Amino acid sequence: MNFETILGSVDFLEYLRGKKATFLLSASVTKTCEIPNISQAGIPGKLFLTPTLDAEFLCLKEVRSLEDIAQTPKGVPTPALITRAVHELKPFSNIEILDLGLDVKPKIDYFKTHSFDIEPSLRIDDGAKIDAMAVFQAGVFFASNYEISDDYIILAESVPSGTTSANASAKALGYSCDSYFSSSFKNNPSDIKNKTIEGALKRIKPDDDVFTKLSNVSDNMLIFNAGFILGSTSKDLKVILAGGTQMATVLLLVNSILESMQGEINSSNIALCTTKWISEDENSNIKALLEQLSFPINAYASDFDFTESAHPALKLYDQGEAKEGVGCGAALCYAAINSIDKTELTKKIESFLG
Amino acid sequence: MNFETILGSVDFLEYLRGKKATFLLSASVTKTCEIPNISQAGIPGKLFLTPTLDAEFLCLKEVRSLEDIAQTPKGVPTPALITRAVHELKPFSNIEILDLGLDVKPKIDYFKTHSFDIEPSLRIDDGAKIDAMAVFQAGVFFASNYEISDDYIILAESVPSGTTSANASAKALGYSCDSYFSSSFKNNPSDIKNKTIEGALKRIKPDDDVFTKLSNVSDNMLIFNAGFILGSTSKDLKVILAGGTQMATVLLLVNSILESMQGEINSSNIALCTTKWISEDENSNIKALLEQLSFPINAYASDFDFTESAHPALKLYDQGEAKEGVGCGAALCYAAINSIDKTELTKKIESFLG
Repeated sequence: MNFETILGSVDFLEYLRGKKATFLLSASVTKTCEIPNISQAGIPGKLFLTPTLDAEFLCLKEVRSLEDIAQTPKGVPTPALITRAVHELKPFSNIEILDLGLDVKPKIDYFKTHSFDIEPSLRIDDGAKIDAMAVFQAGVFFASNYEISDDYIILAESVPSGTTSANASAKALGYSCDSYFSSSFKNNPSDIKNKTIEGALKRIKPDDDVFTKLSNVSDNMLIFNAGFILGSTSKDLKVILAGGTQMATVLLLVNSILESMQGEINSSNIALCTTKWISEDENSNIKALLEQLSFPINAYASDFDFTESAHPALKLYDQGEAKEGVGCGAALCYAAINSIDKTELTKKIESFLG
Repeated sequence: MNFETILGSVDFLEYLRGKKATFLLSASVTKTCEIPNISQAGIPGKLFLTPTLDAEFLCLKEVRSLEDIAQTPKGVPTPALITRAVHELKPFSNIEILDLGLDVKPKIDYFKTHSFDIEPSLRIDDGAKIDAMAVFQAGVFFASNYEISDDYIILAESVPSGTTSANASAKALGYSCDSYFSSSFKNNPSDIKNKTIEGALKRIKPDDDVFTKLSNVSDNMLIFNAGFILGSTSKDLKVILAGGTQMATVLLLVNSILESMQGEINSSNIALCTTKWISEDENSNIKALLEQLSFPINAYASDFDFTESAHPALKLYDQGEAKEGVGCGAALCYAAINSIDKTELTKKIESFLG
């Protein structure tokens, strides 16, 4: 297993080879996920459960808030399977859950779950009604005070329909977005997504400030993690943003917030890690999103795929039906710098499917 | 994979089984490497680049200060390949570079590179012109103040033509040396080396003190690391000297310096680890060098060889064309006490050669 450099140089990730990681899962619900067919990241009608189930499966290899592990209609299993498999072969030193607005709290003992009194945000085409400044400040405060005994943080997400709110957020902030955003669907359901995004953007006035825009069209994960990134730079934490176009959007938020404050950051301790399914996706363009940042960024993609598997559910990943989530891209990069063997990892993932 | 005990007992290395290592590469240039045909550790005419390229390849798996990885005229690839392969299969927790006089600084981000304002030393047959006391004290000071979060240090070297300055240093200090020193050539180019050593020793007066002798005929790596070893004993650091006859010479320097100061050390936390190609070399005798120490020392050799490879460039190792460098012997011992499989390691090394 290995990784490719999307932007920047290999040095950051090579430096982390063999070092210890804390895995933080930012789990959040936006009611945007209730729009029919907007995402296949979970069970239709129950997408709000996905982040809860992902947190449970990642930590415990069981789902407790539902009988069965979240499966999509076509049977694409959650990428939490991949992250969990990596964790079993070379455990993260520490896993913690950030509750950024969940309908159902994960039923997990011992693992730290951080609460911030954040509610699930509303449908973006209806006005998300987020107190964006408060959520942002919670992220800054949390990172500034976060004590770590490991060498770096992997900051992941589970937010069903999160690419829709990410796309809307980036567009509201004035970035070029057309055809740059990924989706958990192979045939990106652009009509529903685009209609939702259009509906959301109608609520934005050109002279709204950054936080007003985000309050309307964004989600808690994006805003909190933008704060987290800014807070982390104050204390030299090394942070891997674990995700695809949603995590790229976190960086776009950071960029816009800095611009509005005429601030600057040293971004040398931040990187983004994603999957091959994202970096090679023909229906999105993460590099084009990252190239709009005014600060330099290291970005990497794992080279892992399911060529060694014959399992039809996993083959769907290679066919573009699922691409990212629950930090699986960063987990795969972590696997690459921690000597995990592709065959062994493939078998481990298959073992969860029975 | 396993290791043999050259001197002492297995206990030291067995104690380190499964424990975490920091890998320090002391990289240094002696202009002795400019003497034609004195070493094949690099590209003829560009041997001064070898330690820079070795540092880059070890950390990043790329060489940045030259287009291609250092290859010798006969195509013996740098032992950095072996050390890097071990690092990929079972990462060292930490790699740092000690710049002990480089012409070209390695182009590496994030990894710590320690500078000591030490210049490359001059040709030993011309007078090396080293401020030996200052370099020694820098080594003592560095080790005395070095903070480690791992269980032990692997202290390696990359110094082209370093066996020549090591041989001259040991001889100048009065040790029996004839036919005890190794070379990166199979057919040890004894004429050129011996002429150079003779030229160097002409500059030595019998009643010169230890540091005056070393100032003339030694190199920065040997002197600094002698200081490092003495400094390390003050704080109970466990240190593996990673190399062959050059690292044995570091211990001879320690021995002579202690004698001149009528000092003693507790050497129980120091060991030397090298390759099978050194321990079984018929043209050198590392054991005979180590037996001249007045303190006890543990010394080990890996049992790794390229019997499982068909690659002609790697077969040259088994034929005695290359034997040590960039800590490959200690890396192989580390592999042995960290469950790395010989077949897997052989394949990993081969993968770098295409």
